[in-house]
Amino acid sequence: MSKRLQVGLLVFPNITQLDMTGPLQVFTSVPDTDVYLLWKDLEPVNSDTPLIIKPTMTLAECPQLDVICVPGGYGTDALLLDDKVLDFLRRQGATARYVTSVCTGSIVLAAAGLLDGYRAATHWSAREALALLGVTVSTERVCIDRNRITGGGVTAGIDLGLTVVAELVSPLAAQAAQLRLEYNPAPPFNAGSPDTAPAEVLDLMVGRMAGAKARRLEIVAEAAARMLQPG
Amino acid sequence: MSKRLQVGLLVFPNITQLDMTGPLQVFTSVPDTDVYLLWKDLEPVNSDTPLIIKPTMTLAECPQLDVICVPGGYGTDALLLDDKVLDFLRRQGATARYVTSVCTGSIVLAAAGLLDGYRAATHWSAREALALLGVTVSTERVCIDRNRITGGGVTAGIDLGLTVVAELVSPLAAQAAQLRLEYNPAPPFNAGSPDTAPAEVLDLMVGRMAGAKARRLEIVAEAAARMLQPG
Repeated sequence: MSKRLQVGLLVFPNITQLDMTGPLQVFTSVPDTDVYLLWKDLEPVNSDTPLIIKPTMTLAECPQLDVICVPGGYGTDALLLDDKVLDFLRRQGATARYVTSVCTGSIVLAAAGLLDGYRAATHWSAREALALLGVTVSTERVCIDRNRITGGGVTAGIDLGLTVVAELVSPLAAQAAQLRLEYNPAPPFNAGSPDTAPAEVLDLMVGRMAGAKARRLEIVAEAAARMLQPG
Repeated sequence: MSKRLQVGLLVFPNITQLDMTGPLQVFTSVPDTDVYLLWKDLEPVNSDTPLIIKPTMTLAECPQLDVICVPGGYGTDALLLDDKVLDFLRRQGATARYVTSVCTGSIVLAAAGLLDGYRAATHWSAREALALLGVTVSTERVCIDRNRITGGGVTAGIDLGLTVVAELVSPLAAQAAQLRLEYNPAPPFNAGSPDTAPAEVLDLMVGRMAGAKARRLEIVAEAAARMLQPG
């Protein structure tokens, strides 16, 4: 049995690529770690940017993971009702040392039943969705509840990655990755949270995201109903 | 002539993928913007992680850009002596509204002569290399000198992207992107800069990167010598 750390990031059509590429860069900065990009098959999937992502390992062939991480994006809607994906997450979630997510990845973990009785974070626009799935919503940047470590929206994936490395390996390993990635952030504005963004900015984004949010809530309602059905 | 903004990010073998995927996510969050991943051909290039990147546009077919951005990574070494890439950058750099870089991308801009007489930032481990190419080194997170906007290491690409969007479009557009990406960073440690990292962490990373740094400085010396030769 390999002693190398085994880390898997789920990828899927319409993923928000930075949700995945942020923690990917952190995890691959850690020595003696294998990192997999996981999907049903090895055909490239599109993202919400021109970046196309080629999975490196199928769900069926994936080894037992130390860390499973589910990124977010509008593509998570389809995963909420996808038994193949949810079964994979339940199987890995039962044995992984850390079950993690970025952004709306947490609603997928929730639909798989992996957040029952846990607190978790998500993108600010998806907090109602997460609550509908029976999860206690955290507004923390990174929420640690026992071995569930979940991040807020998109860029929270970098903070999540460093937090997981600190828990899994050591604070020294996390700090080394942080220095390598010169993660010394200096946002030019203070608009990164609905609590700090100017009202004009928040209104603009709430408006732009309203249609997608309504569609998500419909699917979440169906996923929540399925969770209540006897297996 | 299209009024859509034209943004191009160079991709290349052994790119540090987060140098590119950070600003990519920011630029694609801006409405009415076309973003290209540029390389000599459309064959996928590897990165310093399991992510493989498929270019979406060749250098030869690239339209005139509003923003050219050169990310970094160990793969920049090979670009320093690559006339096809340097000529492309000189051509676009002559007409682009903003000439930008992340991490060691600035040493490539410098080798193309695009930073002559400018101040610029780079990864902390590459400051000597940038100085050897005749550039005034800035230790700012994002350095703005007229239309040259250059970022520090890796994760500075997100700050750079937001800064460029604010200049190119509007502060409102940049803040909207920041809110969409929930860029409200909260690093779990304060080790993201050589000025703040514990000595033990800095020593570890300086040691790990020493070989690559020495190789880079050899190539930079050759690139600097070429710049002095009459065309």
